[in-house]
Amino acid sequence: MDTLYVIKIGGNIIDEESSLSLFLQAFSGIPGKKILVHGGGKLATKLAGQLGIEQQMIDGRRVTDGETLKVVTMVYAGYINKKIVAGLRANGCNAIGLTGTDGNMITAHKRKHPSIDFGFVGDIDSVSTDLLHNLLEQQIAIVAAPITDDGNGQLLNTNADTVAQEIAKAMSSLYEVQLVYSFEKNGVLLDVNNEDSVIPLITEQSYAELKSKQLIFAGMLPKLDNAFAALENGVLKVVIGNAKYLPEIIGGKSGTIIQRNVR
Amino acid sequence: MDTLYVIKIGGNIIDEESSLSLFLQAFSGIPGKKILVHGGGKLATKLAGQLGIEQQMIDGRRVTDGETLKVVTMVYAGYINKKIVAGLRANGCNAIGLTGTDGNMITAHKRKHPSIDFGFVGDIDSVSTDLLHNLLEQQIAIVAAPITDDGNGQLLNTNADTVAQEIAKAMSSLYEVQLVYSFEKNGVLLDVNNEDSVIPLITEQSYAELKSKQLIFAGMLPKLDNAFAALENGVLKVVIGNAKYLPEIIGGKSGTIIQRNVR
Repeated sequence: MDTLYVIKIGGNIIDEESSLSLFLQAFSGIPGKKILVHGGGKLATKLAGQLGIEQQMIDGRRVTDGETLKVVTMVYAGYINKKIVAGLRANGCNAIGLTGTDGNMITAHKRKHPSIDFGFVGDIDSVSTDLLHNLLEQQIAIVAAPITDDGNGQLLNTNADTVAQEIAKAMSSLYEVQLVYSFEKNGVLLDVNNEDSVIPLITEQSYAELKSKQLIFAGMLPKLDNAFAALENGVLKVVIGNAKYLPEIIGGKSGTIIQRNVR
Repeated sequence: MDTLYVIKIGGNIIDEESSLSLFLQAFSGIPGKKILVHGGGKLATKLAGQLGIEQQMIDGRRVTDGETLKVVTMVYAGYINKKIVAGLRANGCNAIGLTGTDGNMITAHKRKHPSIDFGFVGDIDSVSTDLLHNLLEQQIAIVAAPITDDGNGQLLNTNADTVAQEIAKAMSSLYEVQLVYSFEKNGVLLDVNNEDSVIPLITEQSYAELKSKQLIFAGMLPKLDNAFAALENGVLKVVIGNAKYLPEIIGGKSGTIIQRNVR
């Protein structure tokens, strides 16, 4: 099977013009099949602020009312997505920007929660591989924005990490998928203030140990739990690393590699 | 050759929730291959106003400065495009939203003009048929937003009528293309205040006559000139009609049909 890279970029890279430009150049240089999943950085929050839309947060998650949904759809699926696609084209990389709604790619539903109404937030039911497979086989890179819909015309704001993970899992039936979470840190760090303290490899066994000794920054645990969930569902390898070092991450020379067991 | 409908919808339909909903239902019901091209109606102007961005107009055309470009990209490629795609999905129509940037579909350049700088406005050089053909053959409808780029990463605001026309012309090598301009009027009217005065058929010969007798509303002339240009470049038939009556337009029972000669 061919290798497919599913690469999530974090907010900070999107916010900085020069970081994004370098990232897109590096992404264009990756040979073979690739999917880029992005969020919207601080731009959505900034635009909502300019429009006087109050941001409501519950448990660190944005509550998406109708006006906020409009803003994130405009920013994620409009401005950011097309800026990235045009940037890739300028680097000779033929790319197509999609949301979960396009080509019936993602089936989702409005989040159900016993006590909290998160508003127009989508949870993913399934990812259809047909269109993605077809486009990838035409050597077209995919740029996915984290917007889905409920099948009844209602758009939904969806977590970009989850979109990346679900796409990676679904595509595992067709490719050897490597899922990369790239952000502003060098990887999973033993000391959150020391970028040189990257843990190069985490396996199921070492993860249990690191957790029991509380050696991993609590904010990192959901990402790692998601990584192991992806590995359990067919993804070959997950890497968490610095977006600045994308070629090194792809080459296995930077970031934290997460695997079920050492091979 | 199969028939392909390239249908442009005007601003008013997009602005009215119930009109858009009915239109999307009708569009979903058209059998076979179809492409929908949309602009952004009054939403872009409204959003620019809310953000305090001054709209500059020269000769009735919007000058697109950097901030306005951001707004139209967000509104056209983001909010409107994804709302339409989700609406079609809800009607059982598998659709994919694209701009000219996606999949290298359209090659464009920043408008050159001897005296006026229109800002980030794109003129189209060519339309690549490969991706569109491939998607249409998978029974996926295309929803095209009028945003292009210059190949160097710069997004460009592009006239939606022109996008529809250029796509129609390019696709004529693969399909029998019918180009439909649907808007809020019943067709080309002899009396602009009388919706019952639709001219059912205009040929090259009758157009010359109508023009010489000044029987056609001046604002309609550019649309008709464009229609004949499309016909000269392989498009089989152009129809101008009311978006409310899309099934009737497709059935040849409503609107103004524009053909080179009577067959």
